Amino acid sequence: MSEEKENIQFELTDALIEQVESLIEAKNDKELKKLLDEFHYADIAEILDELNLEEAIYIIKLLDSETTSDVLMELDEDNREKVLKNLSDKEIAEEVEELDTDDAADIIAELPEDRQQEVISQIEDEEHKAEIKELLAYDEDTAGGLMAKELVKVYETWTVAGCLRRIRGQAKEVTRVHSIYVVDKQEKLVGRLSLKDLIVAKSEQKIADIYISNVDFVYVDEDVEEVAKIMQKYDLEAIPVIDQENTLLGRITIDDIVDVMKEEADKDYQLAAGITQDVDSDDSIIELTKARLPWLFLGLIGGVGAFMIMEGFEKSFTGDAFKIFFFTPLIAAMAGNVGVQSSAIIVQGLANDDVKGSVNSRLLKEMLLATLNGTILAIFLFFFIWVSEGRQDLGLAISVSLVAVIIVAGLIGTFVPLFLDKRGIDPAIATGPFITTSNDILGILLYFWIAKMILGI
Amino acid sequence: MSEEKENIQFELTDALIEQVESLIEAKNDKELKKLLDEFHYADIAEILDELNLEEAIYIIKLLDSETTSDVLMELDEDNREKVLKNLSDKEIAEEVEELDTDDAADIIAELPEDRQQEVISQIEDEEHKAEIKELLAYDEDTAGGLMAKELVKVYETWTVAGCLRRIRGQAKEVTRVHSIYVVDKQEKLVGRLSLKDLIVAKSEQKIADIYISNVDFVYVDEDVEEVAKIMQKYDLEAIPVIDQENTLLGRITIDDIVDVMKEEADKDYQLAAGITQDVDSDDSIIELTKARLPWLFLGLIGGVGAFMIMEGFEKSFTGDAFKIFFFTPLIAAMAGNVGVQSSAIIVQGLANDDVKGSVNSRLLKEMLLATLNGTILAIFLFFFIWVSEGRQDLGLAISVSLVAVIIVAGLIGTFVPLFLDKRGIDPAIATGPFITTSNDILGILLYFWIAKMILGI
Repeated sequence: MSEEKENIQFELTDALIEQVESLIEAKNDKELKKLLDEFHYADIAEILDELNLEEAIYIIKLLDSETTSDVLMELDEDNREKVLKNLSDKEIAEEVEELDTDDAADIIAELPEDRQQEVISQIEDEEHKAEIKELLAYDEDTAGGLMAKELVKVYETWTVAGCLRRIRGQAKEVTRVHSIYVVDKQEKLVGRLSLKDLIVAKSEQKIADIYISNVDFVYVDEDVEEVAKIMQKYDLEAIPVIDQENTLLGRITIDDIVDVMKEEADKDYQLAAGITQDVDSDDSIIELTKARLPWLFLGLIGGVGAFMIMEGFEKSFTGDAFKIFFFTPLIAAMAGNVGVQSSAIIVQGLANDDVKGSVNSRLLKEMLLATLNGTILAIFLFFFIWVSEGRQDLGLAISVSLVAVIIVAGLIGTFVPLFLDKRGIDPAIATGPFITTSNDILGILLYFWIAKMILGI
Repeated sequence: MSEEKENIQFELTDALIEQVESLIEAKNDKELKKLLDEFHYADIAEILDELNLEEAIYIIKLLDSETTSDVLMELDEDNREKVLKNLSDKEIAEEVEELDTDDAADIIAELPEDRQQEVISQIEDEEHKAEIKELLAYDEDTAGGLMAKELVKVYETWTVAGCLRRIRGQAKEVTRVHSIYVVDKQEKLVGRLSLKDLIVAKSEQKIADIYISNVDFVYVDEDVEEVAKIMQKYDLEAIPVIDQENTLLGRITIDDIVDVMKEEADKDYQLAAGITQDVDSDDSIIELTKARLPWLFLGLIGGVGAFMIMEGFEKSFTGDAFKIFFFTPLIAAMAGNVGVQSSAIIVQGLANDDVKGSVNSRLLKEMLLATLNGTILAIFLFFFIWVSEGRQDLGLAISVSLVAVIIVAGLIGTFVPLFLDKRGIDPAIATGPFITTSNDILGILLYFWIAKMILGI
């Protein structure tokens, strides 16, 4: 055991990558192993993500499968797919043997359908094989798709001493013992225990006398986002998963929930910015175009719509009133901004379960808010136009329309996500270019109508 | 011990709120206690968030401080502030006594400065008091500000049996035993152990022989976001915090990190939507206005800028060429959308530490991407104008400008967050109205320049 503590701050430097690459080129397996053995598997995965495919495969085949299975799980999804393509069914099965059932099932689920059966049939441990098959049957967005079969389970009839003895066996397979789940003879979940409770208890006590019956759980078909909310609200680090008959099926740990939350947040953020699909900055130009172009196209259609509206009003605003057209970018920007602000607050409120009260009271509140904000902004705009153009009527027409546009944009931004959510559609799509574009067009249309009315044209 | 399992799906219904309110009005303390005792503290907090202040205070004073201290931690921050205002220093000190040091310090930090000392002086447990004072000294955005002093610590010279005996004492104070930290005589962190390792080991073994020296840790002044990244990357559920001399100071648990991540994601999402401050949909109209109006004002300034640019070009585009003005909303929308898309990808990449390579290669990639997307969109626009207006020159002028505007918007969207990040400023402020507004103005200016050149005016 070394006296020196490893510093956690791993840094991925160009020098390190070059060192790894030259060791691979020289086929200096001994040095390469020695170098990589120092690193955490998550760090090795970062190195592999920087190498080319042959180099990555070389390292995967060099290191033992206990390490490489964990490395595989940490790779970028695109890179993992490529690596798996280059491993044989037998090699994948060996990696899978080393993984917990939840990770094993995830890896297999990423393979093409025809390979899945081949890989599964090569798994030697029959229990592991059966558990993976069971997990593959659940929808990936449910508790069943996220849970692992590994857990520590005791029967209520056991004694504390007997329990500790048997746990020594079970615990070796479980990376972390969060909770010990107590079941009855029919394998139904009846309670929980912490390892601490067990250590503190007297060795001759019965589990039935010391367990805590008030155990949190989720059903196997529960939506993962709901599981995340429950674990977060109740500060849980693991939660047991049961079926409708209360049979204990598996457990979900917080680290998997952290990943779910991160993915969800990233996805919502990208949607709000007008990017679909889960892309990151290192993806190819084609991938990025696929994620971005559709939303831009939507914006183009919106712009063409705005053009046609303006053309329609061309004859109405002549002479000095032509200046009306010069305020359309302002109107469009304000409609877009207000719409996104209101929808983002609603989308976030829905995600955090704190949108209470009726739709009508929401809309009323947004209307008051929009009226207040709109009026303040309109007063500034009115004085600007009055001073710069010397025309009160023009200033009045534009300012009053601005207030109306802001109110309508606020209402739409509030209503659309609430409506989508009621219909079971992810309200997050309501933010970003979708709401901006529709608010732009509607805002401009409204603007010209009202301005025309006020100017009495 | 009841045979029935509590179902975790707590539902906050109007009927429940009414029941609680009428029990309060009737001062039926016995029934009220009986009802609330069934609920988890996080659920009681949800109920309290729906009550008025007097009712909430009534319940806080009714329940024992072991429960109410946890309830306090779960309340909305605004509501907690109001409740604390209505409790005496002594009452707050009693709540604080029941909390872990990290939560205790958070509660006290929320009090006005003059009350903080008063409350601290009323804490009876001297050790708890000293620990809270220590935690209050750390910056809230650092590991020190997030850590708790509660942890299970053993000396390397102890035996397994002696260890288990002493842990029984320490563990009672610690809600969850994630890891046992091993220190030397100078209290310096040398390794870790899991409770499982201890149970599996023989009772006469020395800790020095069984501990794992490869322990992850963070320094006390590490930024919390960095701590979150480390814990997420290495799938840790707790991490010890040390000072520069390796002295073990405290530990951070994953549930606190989950909260940090959630807050961070919410804040970035709101910034992208043009909302500052941490508001939620239930905040007052004044609060919401404060968070939203400044960004709208920025948009107004941008719109006025666009107006002035258009006025400046008024004389250039006369006759049929003034149709040019009708495409400004389109140009502004495309510039805004592209800018937000590119900045969002960079902001997210920076947050996830996967923006690699030089700034120049990033800008080159974005330029290629923008050229590709821009050209596709421009071709559509060209044909639309040609067909609808029957003028190729106008179509060409507008389409070519569109490509240029998209390229510039993409470059700005890429460059600004990278630049801010280099300067140590949160790049997330670069998304949302900030980038939209500057891109709008610059885009429109560029558009008129290029169109003027192409049309040879």
